[in-house]
Amino acid sequence: MTITIADVRDAAERLDGVAHRTPVLRSRTLDALVGAEVFLKCENFQRIGAFKFRGAYNACSRLSAEQLGRGIAAYSSGNHAQAVALSARELGSKAVILMPEDTPPSKRAAAEGYGAEVVTYDRYSGDRVALGAALAAERGLTLIPPYEHPHVMAGQGTAALELIEEVGELDALLVPVGGGGLMAGSATAAKALLPRIRMIGVEPVGGDDTRRSLAAGVRVSVPVPKTIADGQAAPTPGELTFAVNRRLVDEIALVSDDDIRDAMRYAFDRMRIVVEPSGATGIAALLAGRVTAGGRVGVIISGGNIDVPRFSNLLSR
Amino acid sequence: MTITIADVRDAAERLDGVAHRTPVLRSRTLDALVGAEVFLKCENFQRIGAFKFRGAYNACSRLSAEQLGRGIAAYSSGNHAQAVALSARELGSKAVILMPEDTPPSKRAAAEGYGAEVVTYDRYSGDRVALGAALAAERGLTLIPPYEHPHVMAGQGTAALELIEEVGELDALLVPVGGGGLMAGSATAAKALLPRIRMIGVEPVGGDDTRRSLAAGVRVSVPVPKTIADGQAAPTPGELTFAVNRRLVDEIALVSDDDIRDAMRYAFDRMRIVVEPSGATGIAALLAGRVTAGGRVGVIISGGNIDVPRFSNLLSR
Repeated sequence: MTITIADVRDAAERLDGVAHRTPVLRSRTLDALVGAEVFLKCENFQRIGAFKFRGAYNACSRLSAEQLGRGIAAYSSGNHAQAVALSARELGSKAVILMPEDTPPSKRAAAEGYGAEVVTYDRYSGDRVALGAALAAERGLTLIPPYEHPHVMAGQGTAALELIEEVGELDALLVPVGGGGLMAGSATAAKALLPRIRMIGVEPVGGDDTRRSLAAGVRVSVPVPKTIADGQAAPTPGELTFAVNRRLVDEIALVSDDDIRDAMRYAFDRMRIVVEPSGATGIAALLAGRVTAGGRVGVIISGGNIDVPRFSNLLSR
Repeated sequence: MTITIADVRDAAERLDGVAHRTPVLRSRTLDALVGAEVFLKCENFQRIGAFKFRGAYNACSRLSAEQLGRGIAAYSSGNHAQAVALSARELGSKAVILMPEDTPPSKRAAAEGYGAEVVTYDRYSGDRVALGAALAAERGLTLIPPYEHPHVMAGQGTAALELIEEVGELDALLVPVGGGGLMAGSATAAKALLPRIRMIGVEPVGGDDTRRSLAAGVRVSVPVPKTIADGQAAPTPGELTFAVNRRLVDEIALVSDDDIRDAMRYAFDRMRIVVEPSGATGIAALLAGRVTAGGRVGVIISGGNIDVPRFSNLLSR
């Protein structure tokens, strides 16, 4: 169930002309502050505003005509929901998304805007994994998980593949780690192309389940982290993602909420781009000195889905 | 004193490798809302965050070694100040910028960050044109005006030149109009390459001095406009810019502050880019239906210099 560079290349072919080949931005000021040449792979400009479209579409595109005819299910209140909704629409299928009842209306509307049906559950009494499985079984839907799936991991890895194809040699690559799918795909691509590259994961302080798991050699859980980086609130690494990441990740840097805020402000003020908290953790680790990286350094900016009220609220303190 | 496409091409050669060749972004949602194929030329990603660097650098690069040795002067509290400051630094010269005493500290710091000396004056008692001329004469500096200069106009026109080189045929091009330098250069380039293109200027309601001047056939003044589009607060068109624009501009669309706010929010939410009020007027005219444009439509997003507090404040209502 592990993945190889061939799987990532295969995903890249499927995504060609469907996903955006996102731009790689530079910032002279950032380079000077960090003391490195920094290459920012901007998945905030990806369709649905985050890398999640890559993995979801790659997985959905493998389904049979019959499976697509019955439909696709996912549980998510975040970017994976929109990713599956749009992938289903692109493939002429239909998505049913399981979301907590208290999901912000804008997130629900975004999935519905791509043609998905939204089914809600009570986050305090319901188990989304069991509910998702029951929903899929009852309606004959195929469930696409947010990271525990080889095609999802391989799809996410196309972000790193594109970055390296465009800029060439890199000494290090910083990747936000939540469930670990983006890292698993990116590390698979990057280590195959550049065996000496340092793969550096970035987690929020308090949400360092992957850092602890790497140190322990087995998956460990942490209490559900309190962090503004809502894309990285998984309390434990995925089983499939961890099997890849324990082999390929060199180290994990930790960033505080204030580090993330400073990075979001830097991106806004100096680069004129909008980055969501999880998406800013790579810049945060560099700007706050939570990792020492010189030479040529890649950073994956994982997404930019944050609305003006939340952005203003986070950065007003 | 007029300019031709040859002047714009010459400016493009001088800017090659110094200015950014800024990206052209698309938005499927915007296309659907507008009913056109819209191509956004993103000068918010230009050096100093606005198109102004193009004209300032083109003009400064023509100065003799002796002139560069004595230094360059400009009066501006906005993007032209940073543009001249950076241009002077790039050319091994030094800039002296005349700014009102009450200029926000961040704008002053930005110019100083590029190595410029800032000299202040009282905006209520001082005449910046006379003060600028006196300062230049006293210190032997060469004054670079923000738009009334053929090399400045030609430099600004490289934005449209790049856009058309990249995307080809366009039916219309929307350009924010303040002093008129960006429009003069852009219209010169666009009409030479695509004679049938409709050149559409965009001004804020109340700041429609160019619209009124085009209707009258001579330059007219309006009271200093109250608008959030601070890059377009000129009460009258420039003499040189109007001589070009009266020949080449087909029409002017007017946008309200609320139209501009909606466009800034759209750019943030759906495109993940930061656009200052003046920079958003082209998108605003399309989204609010202030102009009817179909087919292939170019828009110049002129800049993205707005800090988080002002952005939050403008969009919180």
